[in-house]
Amino acid sequence: MRAGFSFQVTASNGSARCARLTTPHGVVETPAFMPVATYGAVRGVSPEELVAAGAQIVLANTYHLHERPGDEVVAKLGGLHGFTGWRGPWLTDSGGYQVMSLADRARIDEEGVTFASPLDGRRRHLTPELAIQIQERLGADVAMALDECPAPGAAADQGLREQAAAERTLRWAERCRRAHTRVDQALFGIVQGGIRESLRRHSAARTASLAFDGYAHGGLGLGEESDRRIDLVRAAHAELPAQAPRYLMGIGRPQDLVAAIDAGVDLFDCVLPTRHARHGVLYTSQGLLRLRNARFRDDPAPADPDCDCPACALHSRAYLHHLLRANEALGARLASLHNLRFYLRLLASARRAIAEGVFAGLRDRIQGLAAQ
Amino acid sequence: MRAGFSFQVTASNGSARCARLTTPHGVVETPAFMPVATYGAVRGVSPEELVAAGAQIVLANTYHLHERPGDEVVAKLGGLHGFTGWRGPWLTDSGGYQVMSLADRARIDEEGVTFASPLDGRRRHLTPELAIQIQERLGADVAMALDECPAPGAAADQGLREQAAAERTLRWAERCRRAHTRVDQALFGIVQGGIRESLRRHSAARTASLAFDGYAHGGLGLGEESDRRIDLVRAAHAELPAQAPRYLMGIGRPQDLVAAIDAGVDLFDCVLPTRHARHGVLYTSQGLLRLRNARFRDDPAPADPDCDCPACALHSRAYLHHLLRANEALGARLASLHNLRFYLRLLASARRAIAEGVFAGLRDRIQGLAAQ
Repeated sequence: MRAGFSFQVTASNGSARCARLTTPHGVVETPAFMPVATYGAVRGVSPEELVAAGAQIVLANTYHLHERPGDEVVAKLGGLHGFTGWRGPWLTDSGGYQVMSLADRARIDEEGVTFASPLDGRRRHLTPELAIQIQERLGADVAMALDECPAPGAAADQGLREQAAAERTLRWAERCRRAHTRVDQALFGIVQGGIRESLRRHSAARTASLAFDGYAHGGLGLGEESDRRIDLVRAAHAELPAQAPRYLMGIGRPQDLVAAIDAGVDLFDCVLPTRHARHGVLYTSQGLLRLRNARFRDDPAPADPDCDCPACALHSRAYLHHLLRANEALGARLASLHNLRFYLRLLASARRAIAEGVFAGLRDRIQGLAAQ
Repeated sequence: MRAGFSFQVTASNGSARCARLTTPHGVVETPAFMPVATYGAVRGVSPEELVAAGAQIVLANTYHLHERPGDEVVAKLGGLHGFTGWRGPWLTDSGGYQVMSLADRARIDEEGVTFASPLDGRRRHLTPELAIQIQERLGADVAMALDECPAPGAAADQGLREQAAAERTLRWAERCRRAHTRVDQALFGIVQGGIRESLRRHSAARTASLAFDGYAHGGLGLGEESDRRIDLVRAAHAELPAQAPRYLMGIGRPQDLVAAIDAGVDLFDCVLPTRHARHGVLYTSQGLLRLRNARFRDDPAPADPDCDCPACALHSRAYLHHLLRANEALGARLASLHNLRFYLRLLASARRAIAEGVFAGLRDRIQGLAAQ
């Protein structure tokens, strides 16, 4: 690992593990969940509130920040740590997934991705070298290699396409590795390979041979069965160095997190808690609460009596219901704080359970709650 | 005054005065500015943040809350103090102005107002008795009598219409006074009379004869010259009891506030600071800052170096510019906190200046800044 970085496994329980990821801007106790701050801000939530909720590291979207305000602006203001109010560790994605899923007419070739910006319709390019350059300007503690994430499908040539994408991802990984120059920024490689274990294993072994600072599972959460996903994660882990962090990108629900932690994943990000919050769907110790539902109109109870977040400490379900229905910004903000606190408490519980050797119990409880 | 209420003038400087308005839910040092919480929440701002910004009393819109979530719901949850997170003093408007300006096809007769709800298009009524009933359910510390606010205009019969509205407002004031039963809620009467001093004076004297707990100037801020407005305010004050609070409704800009304070007004509310904030217009010690302007794209300075609000303490103009342009909710929230803090600091400065007998200097400085 680079100067200023270290990753030390501190406890394990089966394949699940606790570790301490040290970065130049602070320590991340893993397993950890990264709130998503697409444009450098978690929707409606302040940095102080993120700290209070227990966030340790935050994810920003490279592609969005490249478009607005531009990575040069962020660099000029001191990178993400200087530009935003979050002074702790940052991770940026490579921008590839966002471009391929959001941009119009994305065309991928060996050089990179060509696409029309959704912002102004103009042609843009994203290459492995550019993805690294942008991320170096953004200055996150952890940057991600550019990968090709093939769309899932059942076409006759789906296997071939997944194989080609995995091979291209490996060639791009090498280019990213060569292009990356910041010594104060870790670089993670991404395992691809669709939903075939053999291809995932091959991709993981070849990515590991490039000696990245950490490794991510890409191209998952696109409709595959949960059990299948965990098999693919485990297959890749068998080929990845145990002493490097493992990150499952973009996933997911609480039950998905505990299953992946059980398979040895260290890092997560997902828009689900904040997106659900904006739609009035709250995670609670008793399961999901759809707060826009009319039955909460005059319910004086807090969203979750077992929660210590600012929404539950001060406000009733009736008030949150009202704010959400009236589209008052405070509603989405309080619901987001609640859901983030739920996720961050879940991860803290997972770390404690692993340290105490009782993780299976927590996993089963969370999965049982989800199955209700 | 009622039990639990008192109003004591503590200092004066010309017509400007400081007073202590005691309510069952706390003390308001006047002159005071009331942030507007239309639906029981200041857009995007938490009650804790309002306290930190120096808010002492908050205004909610009766008509909006009557529509959503309904005053029965608010009453069931303990009134505004129990329903929302703001435990300090509340004031509610009568709903009349909102109905007459927002609702479709509002028709006014002696009984009250008939209108089509913008929410569901259904016919609704608002009478003086109903305005009081709704406000008693909402349970604010201060309720307002229903008034008729005639649209400004230059028609030949404008004077007659203003006179008729002022007379009807007096008849409605009597009905409100009779309908009002809560002993723990103050009731303020409203002076009308358009832009004629004689009519304003007549309306003030007759309203005062009904012995309300406080008095408001209604129907101003509708396009009249600032100096004219102050003349009208002074004319009414000459007829109002000195030992009762005076409230200038819905106004206004910092220069309007200091002019009105100079004429002896004690209470203000206005959506300007929060509405401006959502549009990226910030009040500063150097004048207005239009933060969406491209020149702030990479400006590392805080919005106002002389401000102690959370936005100025932690964030740059560049970051606020970015959040506002990207429509990130945190941008409107931080800008609102800043503008509210500006207004609340301005009022605190006014109180200090009055106590020290130097209010004219503050007034001139604020008016000079606005004239730049």
